[in-house]
Amino acid sequence: MSSAPDNAVRTFVAEEFPSLLADLSEWIRIPSVSADPERAADVARSAAWLVGKLTATGFPTAEVWTPPAVEGTPLPAVYAEWPSGDPDAPTVLIYGHHDVQPAAREDGWRTEPFEPAVRDGRLYGRGAADDKGQVLFHTLGVRAHLHATGRSAPAVNLKLLIEGEEESGSPNFAALVREHAARLACDTVIVSDTGMWAKDTPTVCTGMRGLAECQITLRGPAQDIHSGSFGGAVPNPATEAARLAAALHDEDRRVAIPGFYDGAVDLTDRERELLAQLPFDEERWLATAHSRAALGEAGYSTLERIWARPTAEVNGIGGGYQGPGGKTIIPAGAFLKLSFRLVAGQDAERVRKAVEEWVAGRLPAGIDHETTWTGTTRPCLTPLDEPALQALTRAMGRAFETDIRYTREGGSGPAADLQDVLGVPVLFLGISVPSDGWHAPDEKVELDLLAKGAETAALLWDELAGGAAEHTTGGAK
Amino acid sequence: MSSAPDNAVRTFVAEEFPSLLADLSEWIRIPSVSADPERAADVARSAAWLVGKLTATGFPTAEVWTPPAVEGTPLPAVYAEWPSGDPDAPTVLIYGHHDVQPAAREDGWRTEPFEPAVRDGRLYGRGAADDKGQVLFHTLGVRAHLHATGRSAPAVNLKLLIEGEEESGSPNFAALVREHAARLACDTVIVSDTGMWAKDTPTVCTGMRGLAECQITLRGPAQDIHSGSFGGAVPNPATEAARLAAALHDEDRRVAIPGFYDGAVDLTDRERELLAQLPFDEERWLATAHSRAALGEAGYSTLERIWARPTAEVNGIGGGYQGPGGKTIIPAGAFLKLSFRLVAGQDAERVRKAVEEWVAGRLPAGIDHETTWTGTTRPCLTPLDEPALQALTRAMGRAFETDIRYTREGGSGPAADLQDVLGVPVLFLGISVPSDGWHAPDEKVELDLLAKGAETAALLWDELAGGAAEHTTGGAK
Repeated sequence: MSSAPDNAVRTFVAEEFPSLLADLSEWIRIPSVSADPERAADVARSAAWLVGKLTATGFPTAEVWTPPAVEGTPLPAVYAEWPSGDPDAPTVLIYGHHDVQPAAREDGWRTEPFEPAVRDGRLYGRGAADDKGQVLFHTLGVRAHLHATGRSAPAVNLKLLIEGEEESGSPNFAALVREHAARLACDTVIVSDTGMWAKDTPTVCTGMRGLAECQITLRGPAQDIHSGSFGGAVPNPATEAARLAAALHDEDRRVAIPGFYDGAVDLTDRERELLAQLPFDEERWLATAHSRAALGEAGYSTLERIWARPTAEVNGIGGGYQGPGGKTIIPAGAFLKLSFRLVAGQDAERVRKAVEEWVAGRLPAGIDHETTWTGTTRPCLTPLDEPALQALTRAMGRAFETDIRYTREGGSGPAADLQDVLGVPVLFLGISVPSDGWHAPDEKVELDLLAKGAETAALLWDELAGGAAEHTTGGAK
Repeated sequence: MSSAPDNAVRTFVAEEFPSLLADLSEWIRIPSVSADPERAADVARSAAWLVGKLTATGFPTAEVWTPPAVEGTPLPAVYAEWPSGDPDAPTVLIYGHHDVQPAAREDGWRTEPFEPAVRDGRLYGRGAADDKGQVLFHTLGVRAHLHATGRSAPAVNLKLLIEGEEESGSPNFAALVREHAARLACDTVIVSDTGMWAKDTPTVCTGMRGLAECQITLRGPAQDIHSGSFGGAVPNPATEAARLAAALHDEDRRVAIPGFYDGAVDLTDRERELLAQLPFDEERWLATAHSRAALGEAGYSTLERIWARPTAEVNGIGGGYQGPGGKTIIPAGAFLKLSFRLVAGQDAERVRKAVEEWVAGRLPAGIDHETTWTGTTRPCLTPLDEPALQALTRAMGRAFETDIRYTREGGSGPAADLQDVLGVPVLFLGISVPSDGWHAPDEKVELDLLAKGAETAALLWDELAGGAAEHTTGGAK
């Protein structure tokens, strides 16, 4: 069933897998927690470790990059490059991160989070899946690629950018990418920081939602005033904040801000059909959402709502008395913290403007407002007919020896910065599964999926090089 | 123009005024701050001082009452009684309080708050107007009444109940009144703890709004969940809290809870006409409300809205992320703190039920809720044709030598407990003006208004005794 190179890749990965496991275990022992300033030296140690590993793998260039200080003290990223030697070879940039979430045994870990342990075919430890394991399978992947093809350099110009601040919100990542845009130039970005649907349902993610976040601050009376003396006769900012939040959605739970959906790319019939084929169990999904009922935009399924539809959510609301019991006041102010998830075709700037106009038009005299935005992430989406996506699907299909289905991500990530700055499509090659426990105790990676990741990478460079002639850039823009 | 008794009262009050001023100054020096547990001994000293003063005034009975301990450590009230001797005499119960708000020089007082000072015809000091001055003018009032009529006992059976916990929310007052209901039995309650429209516009307050307060707690996901992974597909309790708060009012800012207005007594044409005659300056009123615009129920003026219409206000709202910046979550819960001001005819129990049914009917599956109520105060309202109110209006008109107009109070107070437990109408005899600075630095009382209070009281007992035959109880119920 499998072709000769597939078998060669599979055999090499199986034989060399213990060395990947040993490397990953060593790397996990470095607690590169980016959120903890006291771990800054460990993040630096992790970057240096990775430079050493990439050099040992054969990358002729591997260096530490310190991002420009947009926010806080920047933590080091790692950049590596391995030219193909073939002048027609496409260029691929792999994205991942080497920093990890905080973890402590007392959070509920069975074993020490920074002391990796293998149990039942899984490697447990902080960063096993998010994202050290998924960065590291590329080292075995490129070695398998060379071994199976007999090449001395990859079939593509291979670049890696592994950042050290992803778990802290990538505050300096866009600036880093802009600063090094010339060296990062590529035809395709491969993000290895996502997951698949399930162990027996390998999938490729085709897009992530964008994000625009704001705080709307309302001010009414110059100070809290007595609700007996003045109640019913002056505007109440808490009421007005609530009226804004309530007006975000219509009765069909569609976002009711005029212009919000402008340009939004809707699902194609083919995409809806493919999503509907995923073995989705709503009860199980609700359990992962810690929720008891589904609710969302009329006319769309739950998966469509979280992956492919723009949304507006109230992340925080506050105003007036917050203590126990009651206090009969009309509060001086109130606030709303809103986040909007965006899909391809929506323009974040246009959404901001639409929100601001909508807010301004809904407030009565006597209520002042201020809308401040805290960061924007653009959506990214790769059409199903994008040749690079088809190459990835073929490589994954060869590695997993089964049909590959498609998913999307509801969240938002720095991948969009790469898409934006570099102007190329972003693909997602991830082998993590929902049970891997990202950001939770007992994070793990499935060892056989880690091997499948290496196999996919090994096969992908040929697929991309072979399909390079058909490649069109900017398919996701 | 004035009759002989009016002149006799006026002359006596003028001659004896220095002793009232001396007494009030002495009383203000006792810092009877009920909110401060370290001042409990001062509150007790204040009660003892008042018992001594009432005894010296001639009251045959004057005693300290300790309220039943419903909440906290009860602070003493003072009760006094002076029977008329006339078997047909009506019985009047005067209500006031001898505790005061906290005060410190550094809050912005020109002189020490508990060291009374006379400047420009005003006595400055904590409690000068709220409420020691307004309690104490009754001692001069009854003396003037006896002097002008030549009686040895008042024309009415005079009772006083002066509580010591009003500034702490009167937590034990209803229980105190219930415990002593038999001794407190009367035909009319006179509350001397309110104010008038303005120095040149003497008014009688005819009612106070009632109050029902609740907290509505909503629970959605079992924990905060990621708004990227789940946003747009499960109910958000912050959104639902906002939708509830927004639905409290319709576009005419009328309370939209079905059944809320059931039984509410609307203003009569005569009442609206009288209110409209008050020299109301909306700009100045807005300044006292620290607000920049008026907003309320369509079809009613500002004064009607705050005095005579039931309202719903959001006193507090909260849910989700409250810190700086943003956090992309769907919060696990949210809450609303609401207060409803009630007018005569509304039943607090029925309002509670209407609110609870309304809440339950508006929430989607997946959102749990709990509504807890924190105290209820009934509204009170005396119709303009109530004989006791007419007697008060005549007495005040004789004292002030001008027409008396009518106001109401938007707030709610323990007066309603007296109305409820004793089943009699409550009248308001107050001579404080808005500039007196209740609860604020430089609280003061206008000395000439203090004298007018004493004159009104002196004339009122005759008016009430003369009108006793026409008196009907329970007019405000």
